[in-house]
Amino acid sequence: MKHLFKIVFLLPLALLSFTSPPKKIKVVFFGDSITQQGVQPNGYIVKMDSIIKQSRWPDSIELSGAGIGGNKVYDLYLRMEDDVLKKNPDVVIIYVGINDVWHKASSGTGTDADKFEKFYRAIIKKLQEKNIKVIVCTPSVIGERNDNSNQQDGDLNNYSNIIRKIAKDLSLPVCDLRLAFSDYLKSNNPNNTEKGILTGDRVHLNEKGNLLVAGEMWKIIQNVIK
Amino acid sequence: MKHLFKIVFLLPLALLSFTSPPKKIKVVFFGDSITQQGVQPNGYIVKMDSIIKQSRWPDSIELSGAGIGGNKVYDLYLRMEDDVLKKNPDVVIIYVGINDVWHKASSGTGTDADKFEKFYRAIIKKLQEKNIKVIVCTPSVIGERNDNSNQQDGDLNNYSNIIRKIAKDLSLPVCDLRLAFSDYLKSNNPNNTEKGILTGDRVHLNEKGNLLVAGEMWKIIQNVIK
Amino acid sequence: MKHLFKIVFLLPLALLSFTSPPKKIKVVFFGDSITQQGVQPNGYIVKMDSIIKQSRWPDSIELSGAGIGGNKVYDLYLRMEDDVLKKNPDVVIIYVGINDVWHKASSGTGTDADKFEKFYRAIIKKLQEKNIKVIVCTPSVIGERNDNSNQQDGDLNNYSNIIRKIAKDLSLPVCDLRLAFSDYLKSNNPNNTEKGILTGDRVHLNEKGNLLVAGEMWKIIQNVIK
Amino acid sequence: MKHLFKIVFLLPLALLSFTSPPKKIKVVFFGDSITQQGVQPNGYIVKMDSIIKQSRWPDSIELSGAGIGGNKVYDLYLRMEDDVLKKNPDVVIIYVGINDVWHKASSGTGTDADKFEKFYRAIIKKLQEKNIKVIVCTPSVIGERNDNSNQQDGDLNNYSNIIRKIAKDLSLPVCDLRLAFSDYLKSNNPNNTEKGILTGDRVHLNEKGNLLVAGEMWKIIQNVIK
Repeated sequence: MKHLFKIVFLLPLALLSFTSPPKKIKVVFFGDSITQQGVQPNGYIVKMDSIIKQSRWPDSIELSGAGIGGNKVYDLYLRMEDDVLKKNPDVVIIYVGINDVWHKASSGTGTDADKFEKFYRAIIKKLQEKNIKVIVCTPSVIGERNDNSNQQDGDLNNYSNIIRKIAKDLSLPVCDLRLAFSDYLKSNNPNNTEKGILTGDRVHLNEKGNLLVAGEMWKIIQNVIK
Repeated sequence: MKHLFKIVFLLPLALLSFTSPPKKIKVVFFGDSITQQGVQPNGYIVKMDSIIKQSRWPDSIELSGAGIGGNKVYDLYLRMEDDVLKKNPDVVIIYVGINDVWHKASSGTGTDADKFEKFYRAIIKKLQEKNIKVIVCTPSVIGERNDNSNQQDGDLNNYSNIIRKIAKDLSLPVCDLRLAFSDYLKSNNPNNTEKGILTGDRVHLNEKGNLLVAGEMWKIIQNVIK
Repeated sequence: MKHLFKIVFLLPLALLSFTSPPKKIKVVFFGDSITQQGVQPNGYIVKMDSIIKQSRWPDSIELSGAGIGGNKVYDLYLRMEDDVLKKNPDVVIIYVGINDVWHKASSGTGTDADKFEKFYRAIIKKLQEKNIKVIVCTPSVIGERNDNSNQQDGDLNNYSNIIRKIAKDLSLPVCDLRLAFSDYLKSNNPNNTEKGILTGDRVHLNEKGNLLVAGEMWKIIQNVIK
Repeated sequence: MKHLFKIVFLLPLALLSFTSPPKKIKVVFFGDSITQQGVQPNGYIVKMDSIIKQSRWPDSIELSGAGIGGNKVYDLYLRMEDDVLKKNPDVVIIYVGINDVWHKASSGTGTDADKFEKFYRAIIKKLQEKNIKVIVCTPSVIGERNDNSNQQDGDLNNYSNIIRKIAKDLSLPVCDLRLAFSDYLKSNNPNNTEKGILTGDRVHLNEKGNLLVAGEMWKIIQNVIK
């Protein structure tokens, strides 16, 4: 009996392993220009791919970017069907908020805090209805001064609080980039400059910034997929 | 034979007319605070209801408002499932754009022209997928001066052009409120005042404004339902 | 000898007191709506007057307000001839910057940081040319949350840094209201509310706010006039 | 007698002509980046100089530019002592307002209409106190569409009205660039493009724009100096 059971039990698996490779875990990064640049050489998604190659999951995770420059939270909502859901991802990482804050001053077209929260929750709801695991990120920086004297620091802190609260309400993992950048800049920006530490232009990530984001996100992703 | 035919043919109709009233044509007004006020006494939707009572369709049209204060085009998109589609309307009239323009200056949270168009088209697409007839309106006024010297006139004219272009592309009827208000104000605002002619506060309609909107919309609706 | 000394010493004072009352030290508060409200009952200037009555200078200091609602740094510059210099003050306290920051978001008419500094220095220069002693203040708050999550916190911190730098360059005393409010709110705003601790509406001072400002300014003024 | 008269009469002139050339009429152009570019090759001030060389005043008028990029009305007020009054001009042409309107949307740091008027009048007052003749200009364009659908058209029309009203109140000549550009674009912008007709970038003048401005201003200047 024992042997028969084994054979019956293992046969389908054996066949499976011959006919198709194990399904990879699909992770989609959903965001703005920072994520759009994330798939370019030295981008944070490319860097994370290298990290994964060294990890105990070298072949089982597939990363893909869904970032478009200038996107705000409602832009993600509008295009999530085409750009995310159609990929059937297992995990989606939402990294948005910088343009929602920044565009208030640069073109008068930012997003009100209450609307930001409403669309953010609507995106999560649609993802969860498809049984997709959601990771949220707080927005990193607009300006790298480390004493809360960058023009948008107040709003970035506020929108980060909103994201943390949503995550707490819905028991979602948070990749707290705002905090990680803030901590790093307190130790590594002695001249309190606006850019050049983790960003090239106050917003978009340089090599070190991409590495920091890749590392912070990977910590959370590991927890989610293990 | 002839008689038999008549009986057979007419019976179902006769039964129908005894058992249930003819289905009313459902018209939903989808918009912002102007539409929210439209269902209040003297509001444009209430006024249109009075017009209909005098028309040749006194009992066959049902009007309902779906306006929420502060709404921009993307707010309509977010709530259209709950507030419009669930009502199974036959006709939807979209009247939005004022906050998309106005909030640029008043809170830095307006809508960029290209995003405005994108969301506007997405709303129409979803409505048309349900075989709902769509009527679009150009945004009326923010300030009633008649020489294009109200702060938002440039943008209101631009967003009106965008709506007219969408309507042309999709062969939709346009209720051109921007034009109707402009024409009215050229003849009826001799002191070039900012408010008090068709609005109480530069934006929200007074009695005459509600009457003008009701009349303009009714012209288009009649064409659509006849 | 002792008597002679007394007579010689006291005579000029005695003569002086018979011929004219001692000239009062004129202090002018130069600012926006917060200062305009400062001369109203419970305002910070009225409160300071009460403090002075209890001090060792009960009759030698004359306070007067020169605050106008909505004023930004360039408005002060434009009206300083009429509203300040004509009063021949001994001391001028500049308390401006909130509208320069706030109006960016509320009407698109704030003041760029570099222009803020330029006009601020121009005001000081004109005052110093008249041998007027200048005290500068950092801007208090727009929102009372104590974790740098009020929308304008980044800019208020930045403009405060600018004012501190000007003061350092020119060896001027600083009344650091930004710091005083921040310290107070860290200890006394346990629910992290936006208003109701030192302000009634996130900006304008309530009783406690007026008392705090009166106390902070009086500390600096004493040092300047002693 | 005749000869004696001639000698007596001509002697001072002869002496004068030996000792100093006839005083030139000094005209200063006071404005923003458009005026800063006006003194460069092909700039409107350089072009006007060529026009003058062909006129009946080839050697009696001296043009000089006082334009600085990004300037708004209050910037002119702040620097008028150094940049204009020290030159002892006979005529000053004020050409400002574009940044006052534009910066509302591009950085949240435009100028409120009432403040614009206040500073504009303050500049004129200071010039007139020095017996300088003042010519005012309405702001040209931000975007060249000819149907009042450029974002800032409403404000530009409004600020132009303010300038025209000031000019009327004070009996000053107006160089109505807003009107001149509008008329030109109605006839010469058949595709209703945003730029490329009189400007290179929606604001700064190309060759034709510089020529138009030079011509319009010269008409007014001739009237003032004749």
